[in-house]
Amino acid sequence: MKTVTILGATGSVGSSTLDLIEREPDKFRVLALTANCDVEKLAQAALRTNTRRAVVADEACLPALRERLAGSGIETAGGRQALLDTAAMSADWTMAAIVGCAGLEPVMAAVEQGGTVVLANKEPLVSAGEIILAAAAKHGATLLPADSEHNAIFQCFDATRPERVRRIIITCSGGPFRDWSTEQMRDVTPEQAVAHPNWSMGAKISVDSATCMNKGLELIEAARLFPVPHDAIEIVIHPQSVIHSLVDYVDGSVLAQLGPPDMRTPIAHCLAWPDRMATPMQPLDLVAIGRLDFAAPDEQRFPALRLARDALNAGGARPAILNAANEIAVAAFLDRRIGFLEIAAIVSDTLLRYDPPAPTTLAEVLAIDAGARAAANELVKDRVI
Amino acid sequence: MKTVTILGATGSVGSSTLDLIEREPDKFRVLALTANCDVEKLAQAALRTNTRRAVVADEACLPALRERLAGSGIETAGGRQALLDTAAMSADWTMAAIVGCAGLEPVMAAVEQGGTVVLANKEPLVSAGEIILAAAAKHGATLLPADSEHNAIFQCFDATRPERVRRIIITCSGGPFRDWSTEQMRDVTPEQAVAHPNWSMGAKISVDSATCMNKGLELIEAARLFPVPHDAIEIVIHPQSVIHSLVDYVDGSVLAQLGPPDMRTPIAHCLAWPDRMATPMQPLDLVAIGRLDFAAPDEQRFPALRLARDALNAGGARPAILNAANEIAVAAFLDRRIGFLEIAAIVSDTLLRYDPPAPTTLAEVLAIDAGARAAANELVKDRVI
Repeated sequence: MKTVTILGATGSVGSSTLDLIEREPDKFRVLALTANCDVEKLAQAALRTNTRRAVVADEACLPALRERLAGSGIETAGGRQALLDTAAMSADWTMAAIVGCAGLEPVMAAVEQGGTVVLANKEPLVSAGEIILAAAAKHGATLLPADSEHNAIFQCFDATRPERVRRIIITCSGGPFRDWSTEQMRDVTPEQAVAHPNWSMGAKISVDSATCMNKGLELIEAARLFPVPHDAIEIVIHPQSVIHSLVDYVDGSVLAQLGPPDMRTPIAHCLAWPDRMATPMQPLDLVAIGRLDFAAPDEQRFPALRLARDALNAGGARPAILNAANEIAVAAFLDRRIGFLEIAAIVSDTLLRYDPPAPTTLAEVLAIDAGARAAANELVKDRVI
Repeated sequence: MKTVTILGATGSVGSSTLDLIEREPDKFRVLALTANCDVEKLAQAALRTNTRRAVVADEACLPALRERLAGSGIETAGGRQALLDTAAMSADWTMAAIVGCAGLEPVMAAVEQGGTVVLANKEPLVSAGEIILAAAAKHGATLLPADSEHNAIFQCFDATRPERVRRIIITCSGGPFRDWSTEQMRDVTPEQAVAHPNWSMGAKISVDSATCMNKGLELIEAARLFPVPHDAIEIVIHPQSVIHSLVDYVDGSVLAQLGPPDMRTPIAHCLAWPDRMATPMQPLDLVAIGRLDFAAPDEQRFPALRLARDALNAGGARPAILNAANEIAVAAFLDRRIGFLEIAAIVSDTLLRYDPPAPTTLAEVLAIDAGARAAANELVKDRVI
């Protein structure tokens, strides 16, 4: 039996994780579930899985949770410190699915208890990659990537022989504007940008897909997770998103992982690893898919790719600034305060304007994140005026 | 240092193997090279690699070999028994690249000495699969597949957890007549049939590719090599031959191996396994390739696929008969004695006419092979008259 904690149990990744765990109740025992404030969903999941502890990060939601779980025998707790204490409980397997920089400290707490920590969000590796990796090495924690591209690379990457890897090739759908000119993209609306062709996703990540910033952030994550030179990580446009990524070896073999566009496959891989467990999706049908296409990415039309690679190569605080500025810019775009092309411009200008020294602690990462947001917000205001 | 023997050192696979070994002289020591009678090529390779023993299977060629290697210190030998004795010498790694049933006994001799034996021809697994596998298990030999499809499966197949594999998907170029109607295929000439779109191959295997019999034989080989149910092995048409094969796991992950159409990649994989070694080919360029297509195989237009699956399911002597009858039929087609569509008809009729009991020894396999050839030859004669 693996003991499991899910940090962020009521979101999309958390729900998919629960779906899989509940299919194999003899293999997993749920230690703790946390949510921000979705009391009803959290309580239902806690009752279904007979969880030992249920936690709301927003302390104001604790009374409602207590009432809902009264008499169940399930411990309840609320507030930021309760969340961190829960992440620090010894669990074999922790899903770290708290969105944004709010998830950084819980991830660190989970890493410090030395179990397997599954990363479902980009901040731990993009903004605090070196710090989290150093902590994982120190405490003997295993980091597994749950997003489809890095999970694909993980499945294909021979970690015992990284020197035999020639290239990592991350696939990129290209987003809805893959074939649009810069001129055409000038007037893109939020509605157009959130209509991702292959995956059903939230608005923020859909916009990141449309600008290709999601791929830029994934490039940085891949560089943290896999010990290869930065310039050995390539991006290739693959509109169908069937091949999730590839690893090219020195003998000419290229290993790839393909799969349905459903997060349950990479999550199941992380849950069962190094074994595998069944998922309920239909098997991949290559004949029905019929065709897979590939093209070179265009850093002129999608400058986010270049910004991300520059941030990766420069290192230090740059990836955290890139990520924070992008969040502000995307929010401004979704609010119709800036245009689509201005997203990358805001990120680029923030990187020019704000240049703090490299962080060495999570607190410094959080300060850089806040500083970058403030700088990006100023730039947004300047543009709007 | 791995000690290496190459059985069939002057053919295409043998030459590719030598090319790779000679690139890493500090890793491999050549124990023995054998050929049928290509004395000059054998002698050159033996001298270049400072081989301990060079052998010609055709004893009539031994005097020429002796003369060519006089004073080199390289042992020479000739004849069938010398070939078998050489295969039985203790080597860490043996490439079994002798074409046809002539290679069966040498493979068995190599297997019985318990090292790693790399299979580059189909007969050991198609005609004598169960016998060879039993011998490998008994003597602790490791069998590695060098042909591109099975090597791809081997790279993707988690042999420690075969129960987690849902399907093996073998890709098939479909050959030059992939989109032709049966009516159009009626008048196919040998020249048309040997023009394979992706790989540069000999005439026999090119015709097998055009009839899809090569894929039928590979289906049988895959069933021998990988412990999955027969109906869990699928064939998918993939004209570009870039994805060499795929393995579908219960979690929805499909692992694939891609690579250039060059045998040196799978041979290098077998040479270095479980490590990897460099090959001189250009890295795979998905952008230049641009597009990969997939379609369902058509057993009506390509009845060889159905014949092979039936032979696999029936077992016993059927796969050996299928293989032997096909060789006779393809030779008759290349000789313009029968038409293209008659290849499958001869195979089918031979299977109907000749039904010996399952072989339990290599000698019985060889007798079945001879019996099937005789029966197929009779059928060819009947058709020609």
